[in-house]
Amino acid sequence: MARITSEDDFLALLDSHFPRTGQGIVLPRGDDAAIIACPAQLCVTTDLFVEDVHFRRRYFTPGQIGAKALAVNVSDVAAMGAIPAGFVLGLVCPDDADRDYWDALLAGMAALAIRHNVPLVGGDLSKGEKIAVSVTVWGAPGPSGRLLTRATGAAGDVLVAVGHLGLARVGLAVLEKDGSAAAADWPAAVAAHLAPVPRLEAGLALAALPGVTSCMDVSDGLARDLPRLLPPGCGADLFFPPAALHPEVTAHAAGHGRPPEKVAFFGGEDYALLATVAPAALPALRAALPEASPIGRVTTKPGFTLNGAPINERGFDHFG
Amino acid sequence: MARITSEDDFLALLDSHFPRTGQGIVLPRGDDAAIIACPAQLCVTTDLFVEDVHFRRRYFTPGQIGAKALAVNVSDVAAMGAIPAGFVLGLVCPDDADRDYWDALLAGMAALAIRHNVPLVGGDLSKGEKIAVSVTVWGAPGPSGRLLTRATGAAGDVLVAVGHLGLARVGLAVLEKDGSAAAADWPAAVAAHLAPVPRLEAGLALAALPGVTSCMDVSDGLARDLPRLLPPGCGADLFFPPAALHPEVTAHAAGHGRPPEKVAFFGGEDYALLATVAPAALPALRAALPEASPIGRVTTKPGFTLNGAPINERGFDHFG
Repeated sequence: MARITSEDDFLALLDSHFPRTGQGIVLPRGDDAAIIACPAQLCVTTDLFVEDVHFRRRYFTPGQIGAKALAVNVSDVAAMGAIPAGFVLGLVCPDDADRDYWDALLAGMAALAIRHNVPLVGGDLSKGEKIAVSVTVWGAPGPSGRLLTRATGAAGDVLVAVGHLGLARVGLAVLEKDGSAAAADWPAAVAAHLAPVPRLEAGLALAALPGVTSCMDVSDGLARDLPRLLPPGCGADLFFPPAALHPEVTAHAAGHGRPPEKVAFFGGEDYALLATVAPAALPALRAALPEASPIGRVTTKPGFTLNGAPINERGFDHFG
Repeated sequence: MARITSEDDFLALLDSHFPRTGQGIVLPRGDDAAIIACPAQLCVTTDLFVEDVHFRRRYFTPGQIGAKALAVNVSDVAAMGAIPAGFVLGLVCPDDADRDYWDALLAGMAALAIRHNVPLVGGDLSKGEKIAVSVTVWGAPGPSGRLLTRATGAAGDVLVAVGHLGLARVGLAVLEKDGSAAAADWPAAVAAHLAPVPRLEAGLALAALPGVTSCMDVSDGLARDLPRLLPPGCGADLFFPPAALHPEVTAHAAGHGRPPEKVAFFGGEDYALLATVAPAALPALRAALPEASPIGRVTTKPGFTLNGAPINERGFDHFG
């Protein structure tokens, strides 16, 4: 097993995957700090990706770990309707991950970074007992100049989703049960959990439509995230007709005697975009973004209904 | 033992310590990403602070852990001659640290953040087996408009240090041996390890002096960091007369039969600033920054001499 022999060796491994120069980089990584050229505003977000909390080495390839650690951050930039402009990386490295493992992990991350033209401008390494990846990414407004926020919609707005709700949660369930073999029966669900796709083009399209009033990415499940999106004091009526759900969500729910719309409501890590749009702007939104699905409407009174019935349960909490 | 009962509970704890608004914050933390107003350029740096790698709970108070996790990042901004403008935070939280522990850790971090007017603009929380703190901080150029980089000095420049070299390494040694009781005999060394002070005013003063040609903060020890500061192909002649060393460095070295100048040369985590300055600018530098000590000179040939004798050993490496 090839070991990482020194910090310089690790930094050389980083350099082999991530170009040091890129758009907006005035001084690349390698100094006390990097220097970046900035537009008038940037959005900034940070997310941790920790072994046995967010992922397991048992069924994630190292490349999937690297890609997802970056993707979940880029998804937050997408939810702002912004263009990712750069990122920094903190890596905690246990002794039992060798040089080939890190090479593959960084290759997976770099493929996503290069696809979206996001330069790595800094990083730090530490020993530790489990793999942990800390990513901070920043983004610039797109051509519309607008950044999308939460809680800025209005009662009467239509709720639209871009992405399959509940699918990644099914993927987690079958991976925990059957490991990588689950991919044979649940290919879409497993892919949704292992390799979520940040919806940057959709975010930019939403930001470009003036009738879109708010946006977020659904990472903790609708049940927890929807209250964060809605304007203060408002609630929502949600509709998930069976045809709107992914067949693997419907099949998994049926196999466990659960209503599939509840799987969609509580499912986490979808990294779907959820937006509110003024009803008059819905045709323009559907034209610009055919993959957006209306899933409900913002109501003046708090609380949720799901396919017509009130629903009061809460979703997942790290500390609950 | 009061537990953290939910993520919202933890976020409320963050809010109790860190104001949400501040200079340059367009949209505070709490959305998918925060929005910051930017100058034309920012410097960006990230550092991890991991339990049993960078600190031990046995002899760090939680407040010292929080403060040092931020201080080591702010020190990088100081080394750029910049003013810290904001930061984001990732926290890995094991089950055996209760609400009071986090309250104290965040209080220590917030005291430093408020002292330097650095707003917290985002964060993420995760469970995990050991405490880990990931900080990303960015900084704006000071009144001079200049940011200081490495490797931009010239042979003949004088090397100056702001801060005591080797002192924090002595602190680590005595804390590892005797725990908190070591503070009785080694108060300055223990304080240097537990509570390093980022030298922001010194960094700004250096950036304002045109004769200062490069700067860095010494975090891994002179032995490892000096080659990163020097211009390519150059070396340095270093002079540490006994009077230039802190008395606790001299005393600890004497007790272990080591030359004290070697303790200063190999010591890590000093967070001293190390700069190169054109000889003609030295009087202006000493007037502006009386605490700066000349410690040597950049030479045309590679390699180091220490008090006149060649020295070839390397310093600490996480992966070595």
